Amino acid sequence: MDKKLWEYILQVKTKAPLVQNITNFVVMNNTANALLAVGASPIMAHAHGELEEMANICQSLVVNIGTADDYWSDSMIKAAGTASALKKPWLLDPVGAGATSYRDSLLRELLKYRPSVIRGNASEILALAKHNLSRTKGVDSTASSNEAVEAGRYLNESVGAIVCISGATDIVIDGKREYHISNGDPLMTRVTGLGCSSSAVLGAFIAVADDFAAATVAGTALFSVAGELAAKSSAGPGSLQVALLDKLFSITESEFKHTLKLEIK
Amino acid sequence: MDKKLWEYILQVKTKAPLVQNITNFVVMNNTANALLAVGASPIMAHAHGELEEMANICQSLVVNIGTADDYWSDSMIKAAGTASALKKPWLLDPVGAGATSYRDSLLRELLKYRPSVIRGNASEILALAKHNLSRTKGVDSTASSNEAVEAGRYLNESVGAIVCISGATDIVIDGKREYHISNGDPLMTRVTGLGCSSSAVLGAFIAVADDFAAATVAGTALFSVAGELAAKSSAGPGSLQVALLDKLFSITESEFKHTLKLEIK
Amino acid sequence: MDKKLWEYILQVKTKAPLVQNITNFVVMNNTANALLAVGASPIMAHAHGELEEMANICQSLVVNIGTADDYWSDSMIKAAGTASALKKPWLLDPVGAGATSYRDSLLRELLKYRPSVIRGNASEILALAKHNLSRTKGVDSTASSNEAVEAGRYLNESVGAIVCISGATDIVIDGKREYHISNGDPLMTRVTGLGCSSSAVLGAFIAVADDFAAATVAGTALFSVAGELAAKSSAGPGSLQVALLDKLFSITESEFKHTLKLEIK
Repeated sequence: MDKKLWEYILQVKTKAPLVQNITNFVVMNNTANALLAVGASPIMAHAHGELEEMANICQSLVVNIGTADDYWSDSMIKAAGTASALKKPWLLDPVGAGATSYRDSLLRELLKYRPSVIRGNASEILALAKHNLSRTKGVDSTASSNEAVEAGRYLNESVGAIVCISGATDIVIDGKREYHISNGDPLMTRVTGLGCSSSAVLGAFIAVADDFAAATVAGTALFSVAGELAAKSSAGPGSLQVALLDKLFSITESEFKHTLKLEIK
Repeated sequence: MDKKLWEYILQVKTKAPLVQNITNFVVMNNTANALLAVGASPIMAHAHGELEEMANICQSLVVNIGTADDYWSDSMIKAAGTASALKKPWLLDPVGAGATSYRDSLLRELLKYRPSVIRGNASEILALAKHNLSRTKGVDSTASSNEAVEAGRYLNESVGAIVCISGATDIVIDGKREYHISNGDPLMTRVTGLGCSSSAVLGAFIAVADDFAAATVAGTALFSVAGELAAKSSAGPGSLQVALLDKLFSITESEFKHTLKLEIK
Repeated sequence: MDKKLWEYILQVKTKAPLVQNITNFVVMNNTANALLAVGASPIMAHAHGELEEMANICQSLVVNIGTADDYWSDSMIKAAGTASALKKPWLLDPVGAGATSYRDSLLRELLKYRPSVIRGNASEILALAKHNLSRTKGVDSTASSNEAVEAGRYLNESVGAIVCISGATDIVIDGKREYHISNGDPLMTRVTGLGCSSSAVLGAFIAVADDFAAATVAGTALFSVAGELAAKSSAGPGSLQVALLDKLFSITESEFKHTLKLEIK
């Protein structure tokens, strides 16, 4: 498996896929930088009048609802519909799911277009699965990854998406196996938008791989391993942000394989 | 006083308040990072359809008009009105006040909802107090903090807000005393949005403290002391931005107390 | 020529021009920081209701269509029209030209107001000159600078703008001479929005200089030289972004002159 994961990492660098992002204002810069660091090409475009042409150019789509408003919600729904019609892979990051009925209603619309991958923290995955059973504490997670596994399994079955639950241990659910990645560092929660960056990076991996489960494991592993290595040389969240981009760019196969803590269940 | 200030700093870390920000596009990332670094949880949300629910979840609100347009202006006015109705503390950062009549007219609406704290540079405080008497030179300050003290006192009296005038010396006006904080570093003016970040951080302090004057002094002191310490190890504005986030996260009680230059008048 | 270029660099620091930017969400923070680092004052403002007053305050305008939507497109067209009417210099950065007909149609409108300077990569300059003859691969360049020189000459003649084609060698075309600047570093392509930052910095140079060609050469040279020097001490794209802002701020005349590789043809 390790060998296959590293091959996906190389494929992103070789193929440099064009990933369309309709994401939130807070993280546009750092998600674009994360995509560039792993070797992909980000496009940020949301104007209704160019969504269709953009979808044709791009190899995948990432939708992140963090700061959605009415115009942007429409962009997201249209883009998801187009990706679905063109059979291009797309990822949904349900930021703040359960926080407001506005978000939940937008998410209901988006789920209709069956994302290839859903990536969120435990609270968001719970909220997405059981509308209003959980109230998120903003965009940070208050539930642990494990509590959300049942919800993730349900989403995997009902939507048909690979589900990635982020947390101290990231869990990828594909309906057959569950992949537990125990990398990362607590300091990563003190930098805004690292979850969003991880989602953007997954967008690059599903663009180059037919096996979305393995692609999701590879992208999640890369991000969490790079974050763990970067945290070791960081004096705080400011330097972590910088070191993470450097490490996403420069990580070696040996660093990756020796740091990765992956369990398949 | 020093002891009380440090207690507030610890309270932000312990209570991790949820702070809603309706702020400008330029600074969304670094203000979110500043809030995370001091231990608070930022939420950036401005869609009209979710403002009320967001206000119920959050402990305070920060409104920053830096890149307001028609949709965002409405968001700000609605959010300020809701915070006021729910008796939740909110802060106004009148970026570019006096630069255009569009901004002044938006600010007039916002002032009706009586912000708990107003934080701006000397030009902005002057413009806010005396409509059109001063023309700001963009978002940078051309008036010194001292010139604006009279204007700050007037705003404190007429609006009932704690007023914080930022500059080489930051001045907090509460109607009884005036607090002069002479920390910071000139290099901070070469990094975009540090004033906006300081405002966001104040949003976390008024969320945890009933005494808004002391909370404003504590948050301002933390930010200016951290900036001063960070500037010492910075080769320019790029590294200052990184070091500041690290220092907001890692500052010790001893560093804070030995660096703080506070005069109460 | 070297002496004149350094004088322009000093003039930006001395005059601290106010540069209005209507730019994309991805790069607002780093373009504002680049402007501050070189000594200019950025203003980001796009609300229709304040464009005219802003144009009166500012010394130049930068329009970057990276994430334009309907409201923002109108802002750009109005602002370009106002700058043109007030005879204030303005720069057009046609991000993603040729990628969608939406962009091409917006660019056609903008070109009517005859930008003082056009700065883009080879793909964008080609697309701008020959509608739909080239399809850009997103916002990254797939054509080399040299291939685009013919297109640049055509734009220079037909629009009357100084044209700057960015790439491994940046080429400035003024209708009489062509300036080749062979600085920079390949790592710069792995940081988002450095082209946009370079455009913003050019906005500061055309604000202080009547000779737009020399101003464009000076700003481009400063940015590429600073990037080259910064890359030498960078472990990856994260640290490059930081080091570049530091170097834009601290670069000395000697560093600049000894690093610059300028050929005039």
